Amino acid sequence: MSQDFIIGIDLGGTNTKIGLLDNRLKIKDKIIFSTQKFRGKECLINALLFYIQNLLNKHKIRKEKVRGVGIGLPGPIDSQKGIVHYFPNIAGWKEVSLARIIRQKIHLPVLIDNDVNLITLAEFKLGAGKKSRNMVCLTLGTGVGGGIIVEGKLYRGSSLSAGEIGHIPVAADGPKCGCGAKGCLESYIGNSRILKKAKALFGAIKLEELTQKARHGNREARKLWQEVGSYLGLCLSGIVNFFNPDCIVIGGGVAGAGSILFDAVEKVVIGRAMAPAKNIVKIVRAKLGQDAGIIGAALLFIE
Amino acid sequence: MSQDFIIGIDLGGTNTKIGLLDNRLKIKDKIIFSTQKFRGKECLINALLFYIQNLLNKHKIRKEKVRGVGIGLPGPIDSQKGIVHYFPNIAGWKEVSLARIIRQKIHLPVLIDNDVNLITLAEFKLGAGKKSRNMVCLTLGTGVGGGIIVEGKLYRGSSLSAGEIGHIPVAADGPKCGCGAKGCLESYIGNSRILKKAKALFGAIKLEELTQKARHGNREARKLWQEVGSYLGLCLSGIVNFFNPDCIVIGGGVAGAGSILFDAVEKVVIGRAMAPAKNIVKIVRAKLGQDAGIIGAALLFIE
Repeated sequence: MSQDFIIGIDLGGTNTKIGLLDNRLKIKDKIIFSTQKFRGKECLINALLFYIQNLLNKHKIRKEKVRGVGIGLPGPIDSQKGIVHYFPNIAGWKEVSLARIIRQKIHLPVLIDNDVNLITLAEFKLGAGKKSRNMVCLTLGTGVGGGIIVEGKLYRGSSLSAGEIGHIPVAADGPKCGCGAKGCLESYIGNSRILKKAKALFGAIKLEELTQKARHGNREARKLWQEVGSYLGLCLSGIVNFFNPDCIVIGGGVAGAGSILFDAVEKVVIGRAMAPAKNIVKIVRAKLGQDAGIIGAALLFIE
Repeated sequence: MSQDFIIGIDLGGTNTKIGLLDNRLKIKDKIIFSTQKFRGKECLINALLFYIQNLLNKHKIRKEKVRGVGIGLPGPIDSQKGIVHYFPNIAGWKEVSLARIIRQKIHLPVLIDNDVNLITLAEFKLGAGKKSRNMVCLTLGTGVGGGIIVEGKLYRGSSLSAGEIGHIPVAADGPKCGCGAKGCLESYIGNSRILKKAKALFGAIKLEELTQKARHGNREARKLWQEVGSYLGLCLSGIVNFFNPDCIVIGGGVAGAGSILFDAVEKVVIGRAMAPAKNIVKIVRAKLGQDAGIIGAALLFIE
């Protein structure tokens, strides 16, 4: 019997999305709930089980028709053993065999991975990096995450923790970073740092408003976005020289600044990375938006 | 008939080494000549052909017994098409189909690649990175070169130019680098920069003497090596976070400083790279020394 459906889950610190996808990765239906409403590990796991069953019932889909449940998670994951090491932003999770726990309760194959890895996979297979072979994907938000595709496959690294682009140093000394080091890319271009600088200029302001101001020609706002672009471009020119990718995909809230950010990045990369690497790399905006996570999670059963 | 031999060539800006290896990569014989003695492209190519034939005659080896000729070259190479794009330090070479030219004259299969790629391959297969899976290899000399092994295979990148570790920025601003950018790793820890700083402290001095001074407790010399180690460690902590290798192999003249350099590197990486990546990476000195290049060139016919 053909297995026509996949469940793709994107568990985030704020919201959790559960998608029902067909085997061509089209999203048939989607449930979103507040992760923070379900306090404690057991409670959150039960919520996942409940909503998965809910989706299947609603569409009258028997389990035999489901290929499996893929889950993207906001922290370091042992994707081979199906273990959550911990979540930086959700308390109470430490070395949890999440894949096994869910499999035993729902009697379906379960695969888990880091959320940014799955966004990378989705953008590579179906999004902005579709025709690339060696790709780097960045998610710019509170944190700066990254994923790597090597020769058409997700590259996880020797301890399954590759892709921490946010923690590449861009200065020997610099602002203190959440990871404990100083001068990491994230400490310069993370959401909170940008907003802190924007607040000093304009008072309390949202990221979208800062972008609007820049678009309308406000010089201070433009300068701030260009500075963000310069640091990002500096880091990416190192990645271009070292990794020689054909595509760099940039997503996440901060990427919403659009061309003012991307132009500044491009300028630095063209100015300081080396030929031929700099000439073949495309730096593009992510395409799949909010759904990238659940599509990537479902892709675990297609890859 | 079994093919029992391989010719491995390491063409450098100063010297060229031609090795006769058996198919277990043991060097049976080796010729070294001054590259600069043979001015002009044709002249140098003829020298290669002459010395290859010489080696075969001397050991009474018929061509049918030779698997092929592998050549490592000091510049950007199209290893697939067998083309030398150019040499930064040898004039007169531009888009030369070297593999074809030599093959047509000597009637043997010819493969060419960048020299640092081949050193990386040699250290991975037979040297300090033998048991690793994802490895980075650095050669510290006048230039700072690098090569990458991904999942047990040489990774060349999308335009065959990956591995330019020397041109990862370690500061937004900094000393001018040979590549045109500022603040590249090479501009901080390249041979000439180290010697310039050493000269300001001690007058004209060789690298080995600087190391001796440091070993004998000279504070200025120790400080200089520690500074070199700090910049290298800063860059490598970014590579550890991004690429998550299990092994980093460091060779070349500057690596001769030994533990004073390696201890400083290790200290920075442990201090600022992230777990678990920093805990599983081994930072080790290259093992194959001067022969790495010809062994790597021969490996092109084994890989």
